[in-house]
Amino acid sequence: MRGAWLENRQLVFRDDLPLPVVREGEALVRVLVAGICNTDIELTRGYYPYAGVPGHEFLGELEGKRVVGEINASCGACEACTHGRPTHCERRTVLGIKDRDGAFAEYLALPVENLHVVPDNVENEVAVFTEPLAAALEIQEQVRIERETRVLVVGNGKLGRLIAASLALTGCRLTVIGRQHGEIAPRSFDVVVECSGNADGFTLARNAVRPRGTIVMKSTYAGDLTFNASALVVDEVTLLGSRCGPFAPALQLLAEGKIDPRPMIDARYPLNDVNAAFAHAEQPGVLKVLLDIRG
Amino acid sequence: MRGAWLENRQLVFRDDLPLPVVREGEALVRVLVAGICNTDIELTRGYYPYAGVPGHEFLGELEGKRVVGEINASCGACEACTHGRPTHCERRTVLGIKDRDGAFAEYLALPVENLHVVPDNVENEVAVFTEPLAAALEIQEQVRIERETRVLVVGNGKLGRLIAASLALTGCRLTVIGRQHGEIAPRSFDVVVECSGNADGFTLARNAVRPRGTIVMKSTYAGDLTFNASALVVDEVTLLGSRCGPFAPALQLLAEGKIDPRPMIDARYPLNDVNAAFAHAEQPGVLKVLLDIRG
Repeated sequence: MRGAWLENRQLVFRDDLPLPVVREGEALVRVLVAGICNTDIELTRGYYPYAGVPGHEFLGELEGKRVVGEINASCGACEACTHGRPTHCERRTVLGIKDRDGAFAEYLALPVENLHVVPDNVENEVAVFTEPLAAALEIQEQVRIERETRVLVVGNGKLGRLIAASLALTGCRLTVIGRQHGEIAPRSFDVVVECSGNADGFTLARNAVRPRGTIVMKSTYAGDLTFNASALVVDEVTLLGSRCGPFAPALQLLAEGKIDPRPMIDARYPLNDVNAAFAHAEQPGVLKVLLDIRG
Repeated sequence: MRGAWLENRQLVFRDDLPLPVVREGEALVRVLVAGICNTDIELTRGYYPYAGVPGHEFLGELEGKRVVGEINASCGACEACTHGRPTHCERRTVLGIKDRDGAFAEYLALPVENLHVVPDNVENEVAVFTEPLAAALEIQEQVRIERETRVLVVGNGKLGRLIAASLALTGCRLTVIGRQHGEIAPRSFDVVVECSGNADGFTLARNAVRPRGTIVMKSTYAGDLTFNASALVVDEVTLLGSRCGPFAPALQLLAEGKIDPRPMIDARYPLNDVNAAFAHAEQPGVLKVLLDIRG
């Protein structure tokens, strides 16, 4: 089949890839549209030693139905799986990220239980945002956000905008700042969501959060972060890592039109121009770049 | 009055200190016994630029009653104070730590509302542990600990032992390891309490906690800590700073004899031997060193 292949940080288009292996309980999904995420870009920079087809944001087709899919395939038997944390299965594979070929190809395989049928009124190019929107909604699974909660989102890239849009629906007191940030009152936010993915953003988040407040860490980082642990202890701040989230409420928000991600689409490329698509997606200020898998 | 004085990292005994200023709503407490805490030792190493009388763990006397006292004196008017977080008052003074002379002297001043009368059956040398035991109990205010919770305490010093003793009362599945730690199954603890105060202890805690688990940070550290933020995000781990805690339940546990801190007392020194007392307290493996303020 046709697809993108990543190995030793080299991303190439190939037309000779084997179809993915379909294991028991899994389905072979024909991919229609896929989105490039910062994690994909980080993979090409060696953030994680992945070799295979990248890509984990997709809209596909299975038996005439349009589907999106949760990206973690878990074993169902380990302690994490049997204690309600399947996305943390120690033996998991992750679509396009770990031990499972991903969405930048004509076909992918996922457990049937991971798939969600897309409501008819959700366009393909809207449905492809289900996975990152679900990741944004994970924040509200972990931290209580109320109308009076003062929330700062640090980072106004792809994920930051989805996070801001989903938080805005709560009616909370929301502030969003980008890379070129202005003045922020120190120690004044109840919750700070760090999705800039850089150390400056983390420093800004640390300064902005109030004592006993929470910093939600939503980005992967190229290197280690350094922080003043004593100040964290004295201020009793909570640092909270946050990753994948729930698909059902994400699909519902898209179906109800409460979040419209289409203004975030900056470019579309055919699959065989995957290198140009990545080069475009890496440009500063560029938001979502989509791959037309049939193209 | 007689007391210890810290300035420019130099600790000296003096007999010419003025009595502490007693502001409105405050009481002048005669100190009987005080305990040396790691924070006091860190202050002599310049962890925080404090000049004044150090000491914040004490048993004192006021109008014929024995009292212990919460160490944060708050303004009552700022946002933290009016939102139920008086220990995080931005204008707070802290006994023997910030802008308020402390307990290693014949007298100290604290707001009357900070003082707690000690039950008759609690000995002086037991009551002096109220403050660090309250700090240990703060963990249970912040994290839910149940019988099936697997808890690891990293650090078996003064605070670590009080933390372990208080956690043991919950019936949780408790493991305690010291500086010379043995083998710990990685990614297997629901809650890890880091009270070793060193970077190795933090690394150990990070390895020991399971995905979606919580690391409670209970120590101050001499320098910054460095951590792999991406791994924290992927594992959705919570880092939680934890400081001062509730006095009433601490006093109750001591009164009921459920926690007996007396085996932790390694030495007693008269106030005028404060330097010898600190030198003793700094020795590896030494637990609590008390100061007899009348001595």
